[in-house]
Amino acid sequence: MSGPFEWTRRSLLDLKDLSREEIELILETAKSFKEVSTREVKKVPALRGKTIVMAFFEPSTRTRTSFELAAKRLSADTISISGSGSSLSKGESILDTAKNIEAMNIDMIVVRHQTSGVPHILANNLNAAVVNAGDGCRAHPTQALLDLFTIKERLGRIEGLKIAIVGDILHSRVARSNIWGMTKLGAEVTLCGPSTLIPVKVERMGVKINHDLDEVMRTSDVVMALRLQKERQTETFLPSMKEYAIRFGIDDERLKRAKKDVLIMHPGPTNRGLELSAGVADGERSVILEQVTNGVAVRMAVLYLLARTTGPQDGEHKEELQKFVQV
Amino acid sequence: MSGPFEWTRRSLLDLKDLSREEIELILETAKSFKEVSTREVKKVPALRGKTIVMAFFEPSTRTRTSFELAAKRLSADTISISGSGSSLSKGESILDTAKNIEAMNIDMIVVRHQTSGVPHILANNLNAAVVNAGDGCRAHPTQALLDLFTIKERLGRIEGLKIAIVGDILHSRVARSNIWGMTKLGAEVTLCGPSTLIPVKVERMGVKINHDLDEVMRTSDVVMALRLQKERQTETFLPSMKEYAIRFGIDDERLKRAKKDVLIMHPGPTNRGLELSAGVADGERSVILEQVTNGVAVRMAVLYLLARTTGPQDGEHKEELQKFVQV
Amino acid sequence: MSGPFEWTRRSLLDLKDLSREEIELILETAKSFKEVSTREVKKVPALRGKTIVMAFFEPSTRTRTSFELAAKRLSADTISISGSGSSLSKGESILDTAKNIEAMNIDMIVVRHQTSGVPHILANNLNAAVVNAGDGCRAHPTQALLDLFTIKERLGRIEGLKIAIVGDILHSRVARSNIWGMTKLGAEVTLCGPSTLIPVKVERMGVKINHDLDEVMRTSDVVMALRLQKERQTETFLPSMKEYAIRFGIDDERLKRAKKDVLIMHPGPTNRGLELSAGVADGERSVILEQVTNGVAVRMAVLYLLARTTGPQDGEHKEELQKFVQV
Repeated sequence: MSGPFEWTRRSLLDLKDLSREEIELILETAKSFKEVSTREVKKVPALRGKTIVMAFFEPSTRTRTSFELAAKRLSADTISISGSGSSLSKGESILDTAKNIEAMNIDMIVVRHQTSGVPHILANNLNAAVVNAGDGCRAHPTQALLDLFTIKERLGRIEGLKIAIVGDILHSRVARSNIWGMTKLGAEVTLCGPSTLIPVKVERMGVKINHDLDEVMRTSDVVMALRLQKERQTETFLPSMKEYAIRFGIDDERLKRAKKDVLIMHPGPTNRGLELSAGVADGERSVILEQVTNGVAVRMAVLYLLARTTGPQDGEHKEELQKFVQV
Repeated sequence: MSGPFEWTRRSLLDLKDLSREEIELILETAKSFKEVSTREVKKVPALRGKTIVMAFFEPSTRTRTSFELAAKRLSADTISISGSGSSLSKGESILDTAKNIEAMNIDMIVVRHQTSGVPHILANNLNAAVVNAGDGCRAHPTQALLDLFTIKERLGRIEGLKIAIVGDILHSRVARSNIWGMTKLGAEVTLCGPSTLIPVKVERMGVKINHDLDEVMRTSDVVMALRLQKERQTETFLPSMKEYAIRFGIDDERLKRAKKDVLIMHPGPTNRGLELSAGVADGERSVILEQVTNGVAVRMAVLYLLARTTGPQDGEHKEELQKFVQV
Repeated sequence: MSGPFEWTRRSLLDLKDLSREEIELILETAKSFKEVSTREVKKVPALRGKTIVMAFFEPSTRTRTSFELAAKRLSADTISISGSGSSLSKGESILDTAKNIEAMNIDMIVVRHQTSGVPHILANNLNAAVVNAGDGCRAHPTQALLDLFTIKERLGRIEGLKIAIVGDILHSRVARSNIWGMTKLGAEVTLCGPSTLIPVKVERMGVKINHDLDEVMRTSDVVMALRLQKERQTETFLPSMKEYAIRFGIDDERLKRAKKDVLIMHPGPTNRGLELSAGVADGERSVILEQVTNGVAVRMAVLYLLARTTGPQDGEHKEELQKFVQV
């Protein structure tokens, strides 16, 4: 499907911007890279001598680690900058900092920021490639890509699947990016959560809303629980954690009502006993750790494809890719 | 002695678990690796493409740096995670974090934690190799191994030596690991310190107790002073720092009573003027900086041997080792 | 000019100590290395297997990143230590820490510290090469070297140029290092700033003083604005920020009075609207981002030349250099 298709995009900011072909090319490329992490020597020289800056202004362990491993397994050099201990604490703007770092001939910036739109500002003002590793409540494209990859690997397709996203949709960049990606690839997406935590007019994105989780469980091929970010919940949104767990948490009892081969997903870290019971999180329908494994492959693919547009353009990335991985 | 002996252990948690043959194999392997750090190009490709996670939840400069250098000189890729700025600050358990990181196909986790037993919990639940870089008051096996290496290199043997460990034995993971290692290799160990800081029934570990440092100094081949962790000392344990220095500190005067070729050791960082006078710490009997140098070699050996059990098992690590270092 | 000249210095602490020939050798070497950062594969194996410690005890983004990139592009291994989370927080002295790190067979330490003289103390007590990355108000030699490199690249020479340094000279290590370097290479340096922020008897360094920026602008080939470190300004030094901007800030209006091909420089980060208007900072006479780009090349040159004195001495560094870069 993506055979003759050529990657030309310089930055990855939001799945909203990507075509179905672009998303599929990333997923196909990630398939090739997944094998690299299972080798004795987990490394290919694809990005040797490239410099990738990890700019995580918001705390993160798994996403930062995943991107760093992806970069190292492609043989790129990585440099980390963050908010504290940086010139940002001297009052410099993020754009100023980024322009200065870019002047050191770096190739890519992977950025996570609590404010929506920061990656877009950087991409509009820099020549370096920008990868959005999560901005505010807006987008987290590589998370959605690894989710799509996991579903496709497990169920063979996205098209026509019934996928439920459960929890605090309102504040979730993971949900937003998945909605864009899943609907583009032809899935039927249902959102389920307290009505205070479902964005108004979200149906315009091509999704359904259903507040009854038991009903949703019965018909879904995939159920993705979102992390409840407790620090964002006030009484306005949610009466109590206990009530949330009862209405929207998934435990063994509720899982029994689901299809036998349902996939239970979660972007992590999980609040055990809240969104998912420990039994469900660690159970046989859960693909949570597979999502993490696939994250490295998907990020290798993204870094690899973007690097193709920052160096000389020969249009033969497929051929070059075959030097490193089985396509 | 360790010629036909084969390393099969997946993790290094506590010298308590190791056989004499295992300890001796590590020391012998470290001897080969020590030479690497004196080369013009301080690097061998032994662990190229392996991923080692440095998880230091307790502050550390020298141990972390030593492990990082060991990993880099073996050509492994390293990733650091810590408590702050990580998903742990979002309330995730250490085991959850570790399982997620492991899902990224990492090979080893080097962990330091203020709570005894954390490395054991990780080792019991992960497939990745786990190296204990210090847990609570329980164990610090690579410190003891570098101490054993230093003694053997200097004095030619451990068997039959009289070794004194001086100070706060009660809170010291360094002392505990050294007691296991030294007694296994046949040394005669004497503990010396305030009675409040000697664990009850510690004689069961095969050591003697003597509260008179001057007497201990006269007969010891090796005197290892421990760091007094001031933050752990309350009036219950210790009347005053000044009194401690008088009774258990080693200065030039006290050193005169020792054997002429005694080795003075300390795991660092030293409280100068407390456990050791500046003259003794920097004097000709002190091997403190040699301990640090040997630490890199010992950790290279540990990482190297454990890596042998995480990849394909060919039982020919000795042969492979000879490709990189002189055995 | 530097053809037969041989680099023998082990550390770079202060341009005050360097001869004109030494400075020119660094600039010439940097010219060769600048090309490396524009390659597809931005890496040469010059320092492969060398270990460089980055010890930034004072927060820094651009200088630390610049040194790290320089080290990585020379294929050296880097290790970072800092004040927090290190043994320094356990009360160990910086020299003790450094001696311990040095015992791990490291080759160089790049150090930044808020106290003047710390790099000198390290250099006097260690065998490892020491690079001063900024100490207190005293020196910042690599910043001055990248400024000299930028001026020479743009204007073809330093000798005979009229260079103005504008702002808080008193607290500026950048100014101090530039004054030493510029006067040694034959430039005519004028200092311009509030009289409270010009050191007394600074004329002994061979510079002029002129408090009238408009007059200074008219005759200068280069105008270097310094960062006003607001946290150091009390009423004793400065009546108000607004008044400072009026008298010593450079905006489009003031720039019109300058020579047509004047270079506007700033060590960054810039307080836009204070030392420089946004228009001037981003304008066509500004070489601020070029300074940043050149910083990597200059630091590669410094690390490379110092590494020549830490390994076996063959006196053929020029020949070896030609293996990696065009000289």
